[in-house]
Amino acid sequence: MPLRSDVVTPALHPLDAEDLRSRVDKSVEDMLTRQAAVLDEVGDDLSPLMEALADLLRGGKRLRPAFCYWGWRGAGGADCSEIVNVATSLELFQAAALIHDDVMDGSDTRRGQPAVHRRVAALHRRDHWLGSPEAFGVAGAILAGDLCLSWCDEMYAGSGLPAEDLLRGRAVFDRMRTELMCGQYLDMLESAQSSTTVERARHVILYKSAKYTVAQPLLLGGALAGAESELLSTYDIYGRAVGEAFQLRDDVLGVFGDPATTGKPAGDDLREGKRTVLVALTLERCSPAQAAQVRAGLGDPRLGADGVDALREVMVECGALAAVEELIETQSATALAALAGVDEPARTVLDQLVAAATTRTG
Amino acid sequence: MPLRSDVVTPALHPLDAEDLRSRVDKSVEDMLTRQAAVLDEVGDDLSPLMEALADLLRGGKRLRPAFCYWGWRGAGGADCSEIVNVATSLELFQAAALIHDDVMDGSDTRRGQPAVHRRVAALHRRDHWLGSPEAFGVAGAILAGDLCLSWCDEMYAGSGLPAEDLLRGRAVFDRMRTELMCGQYLDMLESAQSSTTVERARHVILYKSAKYTVAQPLLLGGALAGAESELLSTYDIYGRAVGEAFQLRDDVLGVFGDPATTGKPAGDDLREGKRTVLVALTLERCSPAQAAQVRAGLGDPRLGADGVDALREVMVECGALAAVEELIETQSATALAALAGVDEPARTVLDQLVAAATTRTG
Repeated sequence: MPLRSDVVTPALHPLDAEDLRSRVDKSVEDMLTRQAAVLDEVGDDLSPLMEALADLLRGGKRLRPAFCYWGWRGAGGADCSEIVNVATSLELFQAAALIHDDVMDGSDTRRGQPAVHRRVAALHRRDHWLGSPEAFGVAGAILAGDLCLSWCDEMYAGSGLPAEDLLRGRAVFDRMRTELMCGQYLDMLESAQSSTTVERARHVILYKSAKYTVAQPLLLGGALAGAESELLSTYDIYGRAVGEAFQLRDDVLGVFGDPATTGKPAGDDLREGKRTVLVALTLERCSPAQAAQVRAGLGDPRLGADGVDALREVMVECGALAAVEELIETQSATALAALAGVDEPARTVLDQLVAAATTRTG
Repeated sequence: MPLRSDVVTPALHPLDAEDLRSRVDKSVEDMLTRQAAVLDEVGDDLSPLMEALADLLRGGKRLRPAFCYWGWRGAGGADCSEIVNVATSLELFQAAALIHDDVMDGSDTRRGQPAVHRRVAALHRRDHWLGSPEAFGVAGAILAGDLCLSWCDEMYAGSGLPAEDLLRGRAVFDRMRTELMCGQYLDMLESAQSSTTVERARHVILYKSAKYTVAQPLLLGGALAGAESELLSTYDIYGRAVGEAFQLRDDVLGVFGDPATTGKPAGDDLREGKRTVLVALTLERCSPAQAAQVRAGLGDPRLGADGVDALREVMVECGALAAVEELIETQSATALAALAGVDEPARTVLDQLVAAATTRTG
């Protein structure tokens, strides 16, 4: 699990990205206005739930929409508001995944705010309602995530693109949703089974992150624009490579990141027992004594600063950190090389998005 | 909350219902086969999750598909497999709602089997994985419900009906999903706030049950077939009335039903503290001493057989049970009267479906 909110370093933001971001923000706002009207009609009591959703949805960095939009442009699609709407539907999907993921992980914060289940629980606590605030918070967040899942699809179908064009994107759109749920389940299973091989960890990354963060948004944009199979293959190679590098960077930040920029306490991923590629490489390379130390610390919710430091040291010393950095480099290079066949201006933007996704600090 | 599995008494099943049911079953099987192939590709570890979903999806009594199908036929739509696929998408929506509802309520069983979260937890327990089996079960069920929500939409969009026809049904389809989530939230809120007025309880019923069980499936079928607004108004009147009567019957069965036919322990709704119309009417009509007794018993998980009997007695004595039965009668009569304007054969089937939905015993 933990799905990290995507924080892309502003300095690395590619050409036109600010413009696209504000258009996605606008599309999000329009959708929020429409849905708030529906919720209002049902009853005033829904407004705190709507506010929690709105706050979360306003916070995204719009990485998936960017890949979708440039996948469309790279396949010759003309700029239009309809493709921005489709791209925005991916933000709703991401919000659903984050809300449910935070429930599953019991995470406290998201995008610098309390997680949705914590917000709903706080409501219960504040007004001294009957029953358990935690259970109420979880139930509210399950429903909030369900709303986002439904709205994702509503936004896709109602984007304004012709229905026959939308049908072309359906295979990618449908598979993306199913595969992410599967990837999330596999990720849970890895932690529960405490199985850690590099191969398995990379397999999980592919499904829980790489495909739906980069490859599938890009392929969706391409399919909608009627891309040839050669370009779709290029997108797939680029997308899987950048997607994996994105997640590997996330995993490194989860252990070595600065809490000031990641927004998460240092070493939180270790306490949660995440079975990352970094952890798998560490266990492959370190001494038996160190391996015992890593296994003991991993998933220990009481692991303190010293314990985190000790595990970091093992990861550095055995060369696992360097190996992950090398893998990020290799995957970035693969992605950049694949771009040779993509036309401008998409090529330049997709080139810059590699750095944005893989060299970020938070 | 508790969403009851819909058990329709076979003797009351309308004309052609068995045929339609087997066609929906077939459509469910085809979908399961397609999705199992996707999950297999991701990994073998997904198969227990797929099995849990398949078992749940095979168990439905196909009430919502029946309303959708006959809404289509009543509006002049010709029989075809495509509308059966759309109708089947509602079973996936219902499955998602049930899976998530069982997590929210902490229910143990569904459709005579362990709830999905219990099945997934049992897997964890059997294989002695790390961490909490309960938390793993909840996480697995959240993902399982998410899969059903995505598949619902996939089935709708991929039903085979022309894309422009599907667009006509979108307004109903989208609103149905949003409104059910809202209704579920309101229902939780009623229990948490222990607010119980007849008016509020009826408002919750409308959104958590009546609309998505009867009115919206019917309106969806009608809208897809291009029904005139007059027929849609008829459907709406009929749907809200039958839908409310359906839920009122459910509430009565939740307190007075025979566990052998309802599949739930006697008085479970009382222990769960459900704020039903029956409860609201009881509190409105009974003496202050009885009201104190009802409030004390409601939501008490340790309420025994004697306690359940005592609350039942209050409900009978003060006339609340009779009042609910009268409301069911009135709503059924409203629905039957509305059918005058519907053409055959839909009229006869919809007529019979009133009894199927409101006079069932389990």
